[in-house]
This record gives sequence, C-alpha cells and structure tokens, in this order.
Amino acid sequence: MNDANSDSSPHDPVITELRDKLRGISLLQHAVTVLEWDQETHMPIGGTESRAASLGELVGLQHKRAQDPALGDCISRAEEVAADCGDGDLQSLVREVRYDYDKSVRIPATLATEISESSSKTLMAWRSARENDDFPLFEPLLKKQIQLQEQYADCLQDGNTSRYDILMNLYERGMTSQRFEEICQQVVPGIRNIIERATENPTPEPAFMKGPWDTDKQLTFAKEVATELGYDFERGAIDLTAHPFCTSPAAPHDVRITTRVSSDDFIGNLYGVIHEAGHAMYEQGLDPAWEHTPLCDSISMGIHESQSRFWENDIGRGEPFWSHFLPKMRKYFPDQLADVNAREMAAAVNPVRPSLIRVEADEVTYSLHIALRFELEKGMFDGSITTSDLPGLWREKMKEYLGVEPENDRDGVLQDIHWSFGAFGYFPTYLLGSLYSAQFYQAIGEQIDIEGEVGAGRFGAILEWLHSRVHRPGRRRMPLELLEDATGQPLDPGVMIASLDRKVELVHGV
Amino acid sequence: MNDANSDSSPHDPVITELRDKLRGISLLQHAVTVLEWDQETHMPIGGTESRAASLGELVGLQHKRAQDPALGDCISRAEEVAADCGDGDLQSLVREVRYDYDKSVRIPATLATEISESSSKTLMAWRSARENDDFPLFEPLLKKQIQLQEQYADCLQDGNTSRYDILMNLYERGMTSQRFEEICQQVVPGIRNIIERATENPTPEPAFMKGPWDTDKQLTFAKEVATELGYDFERGAIDLTAHPFCTSPAAPHDVRITTRVSSDDFIGNLYGVIHEAGHAMYEQGLDPAWEHTPLCDSISMGIHESQSRFWENDIGRGEPFWSHFLPKMRKYFPDQLADVNAREMAAAVNPVRPSLIRVEADEVTYSLHIALRFELEKGMFDGSITTSDLPGLWREKMKEYLGVEPENDRDGVLQDIHWSFGAFGYFPTYLLGSLYSAQFYQAIGEQIDIEGEVGAGRFGAILEWLHSRVHRPGRRRMPLELLEDATGQPLDPGVMIASLDRKVELVHGV
Repeated sequence: MNDANSDSSPHDPVITELRDKLRGISLLQHAVTVLEWDQETHMPIGGTESRAASLGELVGLQHKRAQDPALGDCISRAEEVAADCGDGDLQSLVREVRYDYDKSVRIPATLATEISESSSKTLMAWRSARENDDFPLFEPLLKKQIQLQEQYADCLQDGNTSRYDILMNLYERGMTSQRFEEICQQVVPGIRNIIERATENPTPEPAFMKGPWDTDKQLTFAKEVATELGYDFERGAIDLTAHPFCTSPAAPHDVRITTRVSSDDFIGNLYGVIHEAGHAMYEQGLDPAWEHTPLCDSISMGIHESQSRFWENDIGRGEPFWSHFLPKMRKYFPDQLADVNAREMAAAVNPVRPSLIRVEADEVTYSLHIALRFELEKGMFDGSITTSDLPGLWREKMKEYLGVEPENDRDGVLQDIHWSFGAFGYFPTYLLGSLYSAQFYQAIGEQIDIEGEVGAGRFGAILEWLHSRVHRPGRRRMPLELLEDATGQPLDPGVMIASLDRKVELVHGV
Repeated sequence: MNDANSDSSPHDPVITELRDKLRGISLLQHAVTVLEWDQETHMPIGGTESRAASLGELVGLQHKRAQDPALGDCISRAEEVAADCGDGDLQSLVREVRYDYDKSVRIPATLATEISESSSKTLMAWRSARENDDFPLFEPLLKKQIQLQEQYADCLQDGNTSRYDILMNLYERGMTSQRFEEICQQVVPGIRNIIERATENPTPEPAFMKGPWDTDKQLTFAKEVATELGYDFERGAIDLTAHPFCTSPAAPHDVRITTRVSSDDFIGNLYGVIHEAGHAMYEQGLDPAWEHTPLCDSISMGIHESQSRFWENDIGRGEPFWSHFLPKMRKYFPDQLADVNAREMAAAVNPVRPSLIRVEADEVTYSLHIALRFELEKGMFDGSITTSDLPGLWREKMKEYLGVEPENDRDGVLQDIHWSFGAFGYFPTYLLGSLYSAQFYQAIGEQIDIEGEVGAGRFGAILEWLHSRVHRPGRRRMPLELLEDATGQPLDPGVMIASLDRKVELVHGV
C-alpha cells in the first residue's frame, strides 16, 4: 500500500519477518563472538578442541540460516515493500541484506569448509615458521590459501572485476586496486619527503621515557583516559591478551576491548587502549533502533580503522591531549614525570623512525609498510609475483621505501598474520583509515575548536560529531559516500600528508 | 548381530548416530555455559538484554534437538543394540539417554516457557524482597512457582510418587522424602548433641584471625592450595564473582571456578576456593572417552556436593592440612601467622556456633539448616504448610533446632535463592553430600594413610581414589549404588556424626 503514510512500512509484516530472521542469525553471532573472546582471554588451554567443535557447530547453524531459501524469499518480498514505500532506511536495509545473502549463497559449503580447514593449518604453520624463521615451511600453504581465495573470488564474480579487487571489496566496499594504486602514488613520495626531513634532524628518545612503568598504574590510567574520551564501560569491558583487539558481542550494548601491558614502556598500552577504544566507540555509536541488522553494523574496515586512528593519532598524540592528561598521568608517576611538559610529551610519543615491524611503526612511516604489502598482494593475484619471490622482494622494497632491511624473514615477510588466514586485500584498509581520519579531523575542525576542547578535557562534541555522521549511519552509505557526506569532500590523500607534515614541523621543528 | 565379538557394539552405526546427536546437544550446552559464565564474570551491565536473547535462542535450539523424534527413534534402535551386546557401558548410556529424552519430551513447551518467565520474575522479586525485608512481596510469586513445579512434577508422574519426591529426584536420583526424613531423624539429635557439648565450652575466635588479610595474597595462596590438591589449571580457570560457583563449559577439558575475597577474613576465600575446586576436580575426573554423553556427566547434586565438602571440610579443615599449608601461608602473611601452629589454625577454622545464615554456617550446625528447609518444602507440597506460614515457622524451627531466631525475614525465610527459581527438593542434596563425603573419607582411610599423606602434602593417591571410584563412573551408577560400590557400605548417617564428634573432641577438647 503506497499511500501517504510511508511511516507504516517499517511495520509491514514482511519487514517484521525479515527482522526476525536477521535477529536469529545475529543472536548466534553473539554467541560466536563471546566464545571467541573467551578463547582469547580466559579459556584454559585444555578447552581448545572442545571450543573449536562448539564454534564449528554454531557457525554451521548460522550459515544455514544465512543461506536459507526462505530468507531469500523474504528478502525478495521485502524489496518490493521497500521499493514501494520510499523509506530510505528500508531501502538501505534490503540492499545490504540482499548483498549479504547473495554473497552467502554463492559460496559452496565445500569451499567454505576447505577454506576454514586450510586457514587453521596455515595459521599454525605460520606461527611455527615465524618462530623458526622458516619461510619454506609456510610457502606451500600460503600458495594454497591464494588458490582458495581465487576460487572464493570467482564465486563472487559478476563481470570482469579482478579477483584481487573482489577480495579487497570484502573489507572496503567500492575500493579498487587502480584507485588504491593512485593513492599510493601520491602518499609514498609525500611520506618519504617527510621522513627525510625528520631523519635529517633526529630527535633521540628522552631519558624520562625509559621506565620502568608500573603495569597496574598504566592500566588504571589508560582506563581513565578511555573513559574520558567517551568509551562507555557500562557497555564495555577491558581485558588482557597477547594481541589487542576490539570485539562486539552485541553492538551497541556490549563492546569490549583488550590490551597488553609491559613495564618497559607506556606507549604500547596507552595508545593501544586508545586505539581499541576508538574502534569500540564506533560500535557503541551504532544505531540501536536497528539492532541485529546491517544498519547497526560497521560499513568497512577502513572506516573502522579511521575511528581507532582518529583517537589514537589525531587526538591522542597531539599537544592539547597532553595538556589535559599529563597532570592526570603524573598522579600515577609523580617522580618520572615531574619535569616533563606537554610539548615534550607530545614530541616523545611522535617519533619518526623507519623500522622493520608494521605494528610497531610510527604514524608517519606506517603508510609505507602498507604500500609495500599492497604491491606484493596485487602481484600475487595478477600473476606477476610468485610466493617464492616474496622474501627477496620484501627486503628490496623495505630498503627502497624505508631504507631499512630485515636480516631475516621473521622480521620481514613472516611478520603479519593476515595472509595465513586468507585475508588478501585487507592491508589497504589501514592506510585508508588514516586518510579518512585526517579528513574527519579537518572537517570537525571547521565546526569545533578541537584543540581548545581537547586541551580542556572536553571530548563530547567531537564524539557526537562522529556518532551522528560516521557511526549511526551504519551500512546505509558506502565508505566513500559516508566520507563525502560527513566532510563535504571526496577522498583526498593530501589531507593526511599535510597533517603529518604540520605535526612533524610542530613536534620536531623541521 | 549378537555374536561373540561384543566389543564391536560401541562402533555400531546406531551408536555412532546416537553419539553424534548427543554431541550436537552438548556443543550447544557448551556455548550456553560459556555465555552464562561470561554473564556472571565479565559482561558489562549494558549487555544484559542481548545476552538473555542470545541465551534464549540457544536454549530453544537445544530443546528442539533434545526432543527431536528422530533422536527418540535413534534411542529405540540403540536400546536394541545395547540389549543384544551385553556391553555395560552401552547399556548405561542408553538407559541414561532414554531417561533424559523421556523427561524432555514430557514437558510441554508452553510450561517450560512459563516456568522460565516466572523464574525470572520471581528471582527479581526475591532480590527486592530480601533487600527490603518484604516477604509479602515475594509470597504470591513463590506460590505461583510452587504451582508450576507441581505441574512440572505431574508431567513426570509414572505411578503414585509424591510430587515432592519427583522434584527431589531431579537433583538426587533414587532418593525419597521418606528416606530423607529417616536420615534427618538420625542426624538432627546427633548434631544437636555435638552442638550442646561444643557450646558448653565455647572457644572464642583467636586474635590472629582478625586480619586485615591482603586480598591479592589471599588469591595467590588459595590458587596455590587448589593446584596442590589437584585442580588442573591447564583445564581450569578462576575468576571473581559475588557468589562463587563451579561451571563446566566442556568437562573434563574446561572446568572453571569463581570466588570472592574480602580483607576482613581469609576463610571465605580459601575454603570457598577449596570447595569449588572440589566440584571442579569431580568434573575434571569425568571420563573423556564418553565426552558429550551422560557417561561423562555428574550423577547427582549430592555426589557433586560430597566432592566439594570432602576437600573443604574432611581434608581442608584438618590439622594435617595445616601442618602442610601453614608454612606456605606464612610466606604471604609472615607477621600475622608468626606465632600460630597447625593445631591452633585447625581449631580456628572449625568454629561451632549456631547462626542464622546457612551459607555462613559451620560444618556442624549446617545440617540443621537443611533439616529445617526440608520440613518446610515437604509441607508446602503435601499441603500441610501454606506460603503465608513460612516466616513464622522459620523462626520457630530456628529456635527449636539452633537456639537462635532471626529478627527479620531477610535473615530468615528470604535468605536463600533456591525457591525463587523453582528449585524445591534441592536442599537435601547438601546434607547428603556431607554424609557421602564422610563415608568416602572413612573408606579411603582403610586403604590410605590420609593424615600422613595430607601432612606431607601428597594428595595424588586420595584424588585418584575419587577419580576411579566416584568421578569416572559418571552416570553409570545411581548415587546410592555408587556410594556402596566405592565404600562397600550402604548409606549410613552415623559415619558423619561420628566424624564430627571426633573433630569437635580433637579441636575443642570436649
């Protein structure tokens, strides 16, 4: 009934039926997420096999629901309702549900199982290969993972899209390798120029950074910071793991983060917590009215990463941040921070030092690690690079881009987990996150006195800007549309380069 | 095929099919258990509603599987195989699976839902009623819970068993109210006699017990004790909750406990941990060859409680325990324990003081709290007591049995959670646990020099005795059969009374 009262459509019985079905899938995902979180945080090692079995069972049930022909039929009927009613939310909803469903039914169960089993094996081989610096142990399994991802991409093929582009779109809708190549062509020289300037006038690490930093105090302070920034612990929790992550059993109501802590330095813990809290604030900012649906889900890994980097780098590494938080941190470390001012602290947490390991790289050099991985991934999928070339090419490109060369593959091609579980096309989202983040910062700055607010410890207006323009839209808009809606500008890598340029000038005086 | 090779039957395809179906139910239970554990330990308050929804979904799926007619058919075929093959394990397996299935299909879904909803409501009302000492708020909901449990019992009725006996059997197979009444008739005067002797020569709490006891040190020490006793942390974990419990996401591979800790005293934490570790060692001692089946499941709440009480009371409160552990505890509390010896410590952790609250009661007076609850429960189900009589009767009986009388219902009839979620017939299992425990201790003592082993810090032989005779049988034998198999003796309340008698004499010199 296409009458004036278009408001009634969200209550159409077909939409109710659709939402019930989505809820059934989402409630299983809730359980899967809690089981995975528990596995990383509290499960005893003896529970490993039983946990894998239980997860397998739940994922199987979930896939069955996600591919149920009755769901497909319900979506078709919902598409008619949405087309008739002109309700934008409904139209976004059915578009995204259709996208998920079609993707799900195109992957044969046999391939899904093969990928899952191959990923488990390759992950184990990768751990062992990295520990023993043994690339040849890893290589045949990596090759197999590439073949399986090629098959996966072929299942999703709709025209003449390259396989790598199809995979990239699993993580960043609307992105192409051609576009990302252009981005790299602009970012790489821009960053290298900044690095040259910074390394010509190197700033040594100040003595006060040495530590030791009491780990309990670090954790208490980091939690205090996350709370002030706006991470809501009534809907969140923090725990310790070897590799920090953010996970959402039930966004926006239950969104958790993990961290690691060492007495050697406070940067890893503090900025790790801020980073994960940034991810978590995105999920906590999703629209509860559409819980269990794609409209209450993050749109892409790049947008997700923009939120963690915004708080970690754009806000957290600025001098105003330290104007506000240094006195608070000094309460926990009165002796060590007695003679440090905000300016010195900001300089200390913004080193520019080309290094071997991506996850330890500073904000400036980080992008080059991504450009390198993108080139290698792309080459593996267009056939110009074979897996046996990887260790050598890695060294060459590290030298070319960053001027440093790993002595072994552990600090080179074996350092990242992503390829071992078949995630090709994921790395670009890290750089995209930095680009989006810089543009959000710029756009917010046109409306809000960011430095004044941050320096005064007021983060509410900034977070609300992100909630309304970036978080609450969920999957209503594609990443580049969302960026343009929010900032009024298309994607422009120059914004990040200019921002890093200013920061290096401010902090390092070059 | 009933041939000589009866060994082949466990690999009969029907048995494989049956085990697959049981595994499917058990893997969902694994998820339910982890979600419930997480809810008590780490879930933020904001996740409450989503968690309830996800749990509801999983429990629904599990019920569907547990009541699936295809499972019923499979059990029938498995019964034929088991009858033909003469394999004792298989016969126990199909007997127990049939028991679970028949119980499950007899409860209409509508009643199950009504009970679940009523329990949630009554639980909330109970919390509020207890907080505000408001029995009238609780009473109508309690009445409703009794009616629902009567309906539940009627669904399981097979002959002329009383409803209360049917409910009691949900927790303790083979127990009857007549038998338990006889037990109380022997236990109550025996215990009252001991209390009289002990209270005639009261031993005041020694000064060193005052505290404060550093909570981190308490937790570290308690974990050390649990580890030495034999709780395997590679298959276990410990966490903090308001109310301690033991839970098994995947027995025997993942069995966890929780505890609480306060600097006021160390008894609550230490003996709480030993108690829960006793439960956990039962679950860790189940037979992994029959994982996901009733043969790898605890047989009753009474047997379960016997395992927690064995370690907490029979082992943990003896002087040999302190001969071994006092020097270890002194490392954490050197000043407070400088002048205390094992004898004094054993006396200090074995007070005999009639008091109002069951969960805080000492080992001797505890049984009387149970006898009181049993009488009231039984009266509510045979119609001789109405819910409005409860507060008054509670006070009368407390005075009669323990010589103390609560000033309000919060410390009286409102103190326990059990009735609020419809658990009637559960309380007797606590006393049965103590009776079994005393008999296990006596039987072990005939083969092992318990005091010598414990004093020397060797717990392996004792635990192995329990593993082989109490834990590994799982649900192969009913509680009273298991007791007789393990100890060579039928149930005999005199053993516990004599044991408490000796302890009071040793510790208090009366």
